Amino acid sequence: MLKNSRILRIEWGDCDPAGIVFYPRYFAMFDHSTTTLISVASGLNKFELLKKYGMAGYPMVDTRARFLVPTRFGDDVTIESQFTKIGMSSFDIVHRLSRAGTLCVEGFETRVWVGHDPQDPSRIKSRPIPDDLAAKFRAG
Amino acid sequence: MLKNSRILRIEWGDCDPAGIVFYPRYFAMFDHSTTTLISVASGLNKFELLKKYGMAGYPMVDTRARFLVPTRFGDDVTIESQFTKIGMSSFDIVHRLSRAGTLCVEGFETRVWVGHDPQDPSRIKSRPIPDDLAAKFRAG
Amino acid sequence: MLKNSRILRIEWGDCDPAGIVFYPRYFAMFDHSTTTLISVASGLNKFELLKKYGMAGYPMVDTRARFLVPTRFGDDVTIESQFTKIGMSSFDIVHRLSRAGTLCVEGFETRVWVGHDPQDPSRIKSRPIPDDLAAKFRAG
Amino acid sequence: MLKNSRILRIEWGDCDPAGIVFYPRYFAMFDHSTTTLISVASGLNKFELLKKYGMAGYPMVDTRARFLVPTRFGDDVTIESQFTKIGMSSFDIVHRLSRAGTLCVEGFETRVWVGHDPQDPSRIKSRPIPDDLAAKFRAG
Repeated sequence: MLKNSRILRIEWGDCDPAGIVFYPRYFAMFDHSTTTLISVASGLNKFELLKKYGMAGYPMVDTRARFLVPTRFGDDVTIESQFTKIGMSSFDIVHRLSRAGTLCVEGFETRVWVGHDPQDPSRIKSRPIPDDLAAKFRAG
Repeated sequence: MLKNSRILRIEWGDCDPAGIVFYPRYFAMFDHSTTTLISVASGLNKFELLKKYGMAGYPMVDTRARFLVPTRFGDDVTIESQFTKIGMSSFDIVHRLSRAGTLCVEGFETRVWVGHDPQDPSRIKSRPIPDDLAAKFRAG
Repeated sequence: MLKNSRILRIEWGDCDPAGIVFYPRYFAMFDHSTTTLISVASGLNKFELLKKYGMAGYPMVDTRARFLVPTRFGDDVTIESQFTKIGMSSFDIVHRLSRAGTLCVEGFETRVWVGHDPQDPSRIKSRPIPDDLAAKFRAG
Repeated sequence: MLKNSRILRIEWGDCDPAGIVFYPRYFAMFDHSTTTLISVASGLNKFELLKKYGMAGYPMVDTRARFLVPTRFGDDVTIESQFTKIGMSSFDIVHRLSRAGTLCVEGFETRVWVGHDPQDPSRIKSRPIPDDLAAKFRAG
């Protein structure tokens, strides 16, 4: 299925008093990696995507991460992200963050594709992933 | 003018590898102090406030902070916040963060009261502060 | 085993453009709940704890969260945290975040107790949880 | 004096329920821009810099930002950062964040160069900026 990699430098502000990444920041990095992966598939940034498909986002349902090796500010790391399952209105992605070829953090996530509830636009409701996008998620 | 204090404990995740608060976190603390101050005036939480007044928020126009003494995780600090100027559609607030009576950080802010632009609801536009609220901001 | 609850108000800055908590922020909330739980056991804040025991922290090894119901800015939520397993140098905690009695997010975590590596103080190494603390974690 | 630009894409997690960047995040972006500017001057990442010069960082003393035009997730923005004053142990930087040539946010900062206090290594103390670095900050 589709995969994508991005490189980033760990920032001072990502790190805690132990000098290593404060782990909630890894989830923020993975969230942006998911957005990037979907942008690669769609050719749209997230703002354009939400407008085009009249959707509300792809909130997290379940996520897990394993922390194998700490990383610290100044480190250049690679996050490789890949779809692992495409359902009707949900999908799974795995993220692998590594430094110089060493796997440091592994993240797993299940998200759901949602739109605004027609009954109450302040609420969100799951919706089928558009066919054209699902096909692109499965490609590669 | 109206003032309010709140106490909070500095969190591990607020701090950087030097062991002290990563300064952008002070702005997040001050933002919540402003929300708390306005809640004290209105009797509403921010979600209720936006709904009741059909507004979009009170974005920052200009802010400044002076960092006098560092604070670190585990510290219990007090933030005292007070309106210093109420204009037609903007207002000023000062925040003073102290630990055991010692002033550590001082923040200054000017915000504008905004609603959704009727021409284009995805955009925001300044609006007069409702009279009942302005009176409460000035009180105290 | 020991448990503790804390109440907090969801902040504007915790939320994303969908108006709901940006999920990495739940992990930051849970991290502070773990610190609070350990403070309840030890009677020390995290800074004092690290000094007293000459340790470096209790980094995350593996964490997972399930997101059942979204929460939004202004919501008052309760996080109940409880130890579920105390090992030699690692421990498990479960966090349950609820609003008005409805479970919204459940978090699971395994952490390891670490000190500075005597060979290289810039590195961390697992260490046995001090007996007096382990006994308090198991109590309740 | 030395200047540097970097480009970044505004992330979903940087934005608030109004759909625009939560302003404390701009300060985190500027902090990393300062680190990047100093890396450009020194040829070292921040971790290497702290090790080489035995220093503790360059904490903020005073910062201010003006918010002219909001930016939102998916926007590609440029941050141009430039030294404006190099003192004995402090320096000033200005950051200009723009989108498609339009200035959106302007940030000003004064920082101090610090090392660990020899009397008490848990405390920090201002130190002269090393001559070789000061010369590079002034160059360009």
